[in-house]
Amino acid sequence: MLSAEDNSYVTKTGPGAPMGDLLRRYWVPLLLAEELPEPDCAPVRVKAFGERLLAIRDTSGRVGLMDEFCAHRGVSLWFGRNEDNGLRCPYHGWKYDVNGQCVEVPSEPAESGYCQKIKLKAYPCVEKGGIVWAYMGPADKQPDFPAFEWLDLPPSHRYIAKRWQECNWLQAMEGGIDSSHVSWLHSGELHTDPLHRATKGAVYNGDKTPKFEVVDSASGMLIGARRNAEPGEYYWRVTQWIMPWYTMIPPYGENALNGHAWVPMDDENCITWSFTYHPTRPLSEHELATMRSGGGMHVEVLPGTYRPVINKDNDYLIDRALQKSGRYYSGVAGIAMQDASLQESMGPIVDRAHENLVSTDNAIIMARMLLKKAAQGLARGVEPRGLKQETHRVRSASFILPADQPFAKARAEDLVARPGIIHTGV
Amino acid sequence: MLSAEDNSYVTKTGPGAPMGDLLRRYWVPLLLAEELPEPDCAPVRVKAFGERLLAIRDTSGRVGLMDEFCAHRGVSLWFGRNEDNGLRCPYHGWKYDVNGQCVEVPSEPAESGYCQKIKLKAYPCVEKGGIVWAYMGPADKQPDFPAFEWLDLPPSHRYIAKRWQECNWLQAMEGGIDSSHVSWLHSGELHTDPLHRATKGAVYNGDKTPKFEVVDSASGMLIGARRNAEPGEYYWRVTQWIMPWYTMIPPYGENALNGHAWVPMDDENCITWSFTYHPTRPLSEHELATMRSGGGMHVEVLPGTYRPVINKDNDYLIDRALQKSGRYYSGVAGIAMQDASLQESMGPIVDRAHENLVSTDNAIIMARMLLKKAAQGLARGVEPRGLKQETHRVRSASFILPADQPFAKARAEDLVARPGIIHTGV
Amino acid sequence: MLSAEDNSYVTKTGPGAPMGDLLRRYWVPLLLAEELPEPDCAPVRVKAFGERLLAIRDTSGRVGLMDEFCAHRGVSLWFGRNEDNGLRCPYHGWKYDVNGQCVEVPSEPAESGYCQKIKLKAYPCVEKGGIVWAYMGPADKQPDFPAFEWLDLPPSHRYIAKRWQECNWLQAMEGGIDSSHVSWLHSGELHTDPLHRATKGAVYNGDKTPKFEVVDSASGMLIGARRNAEPGEYYWRVTQWIMPWYTMIPPYGENALNGHAWVPMDDENCITWSFTYHPTRPLSEHELATMRSGGGMHVEVLPGTYRPVINKDNDYLIDRALQKSGRYYSGVAGIAMQDASLQESMGPIVDRAHENLVSTDNAIIMARMLLKKAAQGLARGVEPRGLKQETHRVRSASFILPADQPFAKARAEDLVARPGIIHTGV
Repeated sequence: MLSAEDNSYVTKTGPGAPMGDLLRRYWVPLLLAEELPEPDCAPVRVKAFGERLLAIRDTSGRVGLMDEFCAHRGVSLWFGRNEDNGLRCPYHGWKYDVNGQCVEVPSEPAESGYCQKIKLKAYPCVEKGGIVWAYMGPADKQPDFPAFEWLDLPPSHRYIAKRWQECNWLQAMEGGIDSSHVSWLHSGELHTDPLHRATKGAVYNGDKTPKFEVVDSASGMLIGARRNAEPGEYYWRVTQWIMPWYTMIPPYGENALNGHAWVPMDDENCITWSFTYHPTRPLSEHELATMRSGGGMHVEVLPGTYRPVINKDNDYLIDRALQKSGRYYSGVAGIAMQDASLQESMGPIVDRAHENLVSTDNAIIMARMLLKKAAQGLARGVEPRGLKQETHRVRSASFILPADQPFAKARAEDLVARPGIIHTGV
Repeated sequence: MLSAEDNSYVTKTGPGAPMGDLLRRYWVPLLLAEELPEPDCAPVRVKAFGERLLAIRDTSGRVGLMDEFCAHRGVSLWFGRNEDNGLRCPYHGWKYDVNGQCVEVPSEPAESGYCQKIKLKAYPCVEKGGIVWAYMGPADKQPDFPAFEWLDLPPSHRYIAKRWQECNWLQAMEGGIDSSHVSWLHSGELHTDPLHRATKGAVYNGDKTPKFEVVDSASGMLIGARRNAEPGEYYWRVTQWIMPWYTMIPPYGENALNGHAWVPMDDENCITWSFTYHPTRPLSEHELATMRSGGGMHVEVLPGTYRPVINKDNDYLIDRALQKSGRYYSGVAGIAMQDASLQESMGPIVDRAHENLVSTDNAIIMARMLLKKAAQGLARGVEPRGLKQETHRVRSASFILPADQPFAKARAEDLVARPGIIHTGV
Repeated sequence: MLSAEDNSYVTKTGPGAPMGDLLRRYWVPLLLAEELPEPDCAPVRVKAFGERLLAIRDTSGRVGLMDEFCAHRGVSLWFGRNEDNGLRCPYHGWKYDVNGQCVEVPSEPAESGYCQKIKLKAYPCVEKGGIVWAYMGPADKQPDFPAFEWLDLPPSHRYIAKRWQECNWLQAMEGGIDSSHVSWLHSGELHTDPLHRATKGAVYNGDKTPKFEVVDSASGMLIGARRNAEPGEYYWRVTQWIMPWYTMIPPYGENALNGHAWVPMDDENCITWSFTYHPTRPLSEHELATMRSGGGMHVEVLPGTYRPVINKDNDYLIDRALQKSGRYYSGVAGIAMQDASLQESMGPIVDRAHENLVSTDNAIIMARMLLKKAAQGLARGVEPRGLKQETHRVRSASFILPADQPFAKARAEDLVARPGIIHTGV
């Protein structure tokens, strides 16, 4: 449980909040590149850490992220004209480049240099892996660009999606590092999905009371879920948590890998990113079709909003008959919305003063502690984990070990991204 | 008029509010039994006195009312699986019985006894008269179960309904004890309904300026509306107000009896219960059909919500032509929504500092005083009225008396529930 | 830029706010007369300066504006019966005349004179020019009735409309006195409208960087937009701003004149009035048809609400292809919604601490100053401008002047309303 003060500390990310300062030290995945499909396309409203921003792609194809509102009298530049390498306010023709620099104020003599004094808040952007990433922290602290394995794969090897989730980012992320719910909430999927059923891991997974071991890592932490396998052996499923908001889910056999990131829009909404990729082969048509129709970790979203079709306004289309049958353990269809429905049901920001944590929550406890320490350390000049590229070059894995071997060390090489070599899954 | 402080005192019923403490000393009608139609049916979200609760019927048919949120990390148990005599959280399988007692925490060794330490807030429930009643007060203060006459009648003799009303409970109840509005707001019904028209009472009721006498009673108070009848005689209509939220409406002739209760959902919403019953005969098909289609005291509601079809979002489908004609005095159809539309039009909690009360408001004045005194008395250990069963065994009545006889004493036997004997109505 | 304190000072108009006190000193255009189409028609809810009011037309045709809520227990008199020269509350029959005076409390003996003590807050109304005007200030300060030229024209010569705008009144009005946006935001209209294209003014208007001169006037101020015409000549477009909320837009040639008024509903909503009139001829069928279908300064509104069909919920039906083509500079159709979309995009009350004003904003700067000074003066007993009838008898104009002549003096007679004589336009 957390005091009200601690709960506020780890959940609030607006300008000036310590956790907001911490999260702004990382490159932030904000948009799908396809949201800005071509030069001079329509600007896109973006909300990040409570800031109202606008993303554009200019005539030269450069992506910019800047304050949504014109510096002149505050109208939304979403109505702006994206033309000739800049966004022009339709009110009086003020024009900004992708860096937020004002390059023209038509009413003022050009020789006055007035426009050079006008600059919108703007953040550097990089486009990679089908994602527009922004850096929203202090300019002198900009870290290296993320080096996740899937960013360097051919596009055919990955499928990336985002959706709007209606709760605080931490609440969503805690669901992601809480591996113990899988055997319950997602048990319908484990029992029915043909790909899952075919793996030994899925069989071992029938043990609904795994033990969890959590160890510190350079990236953040490793979460080992231990189940009994054959006598004298344990079946391990190892999740990577990479600071500040990434998880990598352990694979079943040679199935594709999956990961998530939870990025605050504001304190009561976040973007949930889902990354599916295979290190050594293209995703199959069957896999892609499944994901596009809301299967796997993925979700069908309403056009233009990234809000799931299944959402709280329709009670997530809960089906009590399918709940009874066990097809969907909670009656909600799909792994992603099974998670989101429960996470959102806690309210926009859950009050952690009333929770009762148990041993299977140790990853959650440690993540909160690491985040709080990192935010506190920042104030003292200590750089947080997860900034360096080597901390990104990791993998989740599942494997079987003799009972006396430590999961994090015995198979250390399986927990590292090895280009061209397939991941380790059971 | 009430000061802001007094207005707050009588209207606020959340945890810790004096009026909330008072109301929690009574058995509370919360759900229709039909909302929990069978063992292991879907849980139902309930809001009462600002508390978010969940009602279930378990495998054995027992009804439970408990905190909506799991004690573990706070997800809504509305998504839970109601199975094997308990509600199981779909997140990690924690299971609760109808008393809110946790009976299983799968991740913890059973021998640890951990689950026994986990108990959700829960309230005892009793099912009677087609209603699920709960007691939400201190365990050692639980009163006898309500003994209203209609609770012991065969189901054929009664028709009971609830609807969501979008205003504070007291505002709605004040409308119920304000008999003086009947000759105005409901005059369209009095003049056109064939059952009403056939009674002498309806004729006398043409006198639009009755005098009101209010006297204390063991239940709460008796409200006598006096009109001139034949020379030397008065026509009396006597309403029972039973602490804390019940009214019984005086009958016309041998027509069925009607009553109401107003139960706070939160401070800006309440449940309005309507009870129609006949002490000595089944309700007729005609009566039942009328009520089911929104006639009498009743209302058509939207499926699943108990919100009236006619509501503030559609301006109560006011019909100015029917208002002009007098068919509906305010232009709104139906007695129930005529009342609710005006009560809701005052705003969620009316500011009583600006009202101008007149002699016909004496019942309202006295009810506020009795409620305030009862809440104050509670703090000093004084038990409020309306807890004891004999205070429930009362009836409303209408009769004619010689001008010199006191309405509350001259016909005292008519104001008592007498099983098997028809009520007294003119 | 304005400090938070100053911004609050000029934008807040509720009871007791200094700017609210100032605005209440003027006659307020509140309803179209057609909203009260006949004697004893349905009452109309009106929100003005944050006050919830009700407008009625009684049996004698008199218009009244009074508190929406009954003095008895506070139900909305919108449900009232408008009959026999008064509005009767449907709850208990209390009746009010157009002055808010209670004329009947049925429950009380007439001889008690009780009802005479009951009076709703009410404001005097006058119907003129197709508009219901109210005076909401101190009774002893009531000014002469407005004497705008168009009020005295035959109805055939004018077209008047109102719409609901979802932002603070000042924000909307600042858009109205900001003539410099016309060459940008409305450039699509200037280039395509056949009436505009035919005038020399429209040609000169191609100069997108006019200079603005603002001079004090007895009415408020004169805003002169100066553009180069033939050598040695200037093309002037002169806007009248009449305290506290009127603008008159300079004409193109002999086209009809246009004006606006922005009246606060509350601090986050206003009514935008649009007045189109011709001083010397009836408006043509073509002009009327254009305006009725949302052309010119006008807008199509949703039935019953005066909310534009194009509004923020549908992103003003922005069309990026027509934005690209320049047909609509911002992609939003119609002059009125081009303005409203941007003004609303600033948020309900824009934070003026972050603006960067330039020379073309001098009218806005002066208007704020005049309003603030007028509100401050009021407290010292100084009467504000715009109360006297001669300050209303003005006209906007456009003309060509030798370069050395001052726009406000050289053609002073063109800036005065001259009945029967056409306005001056280029």
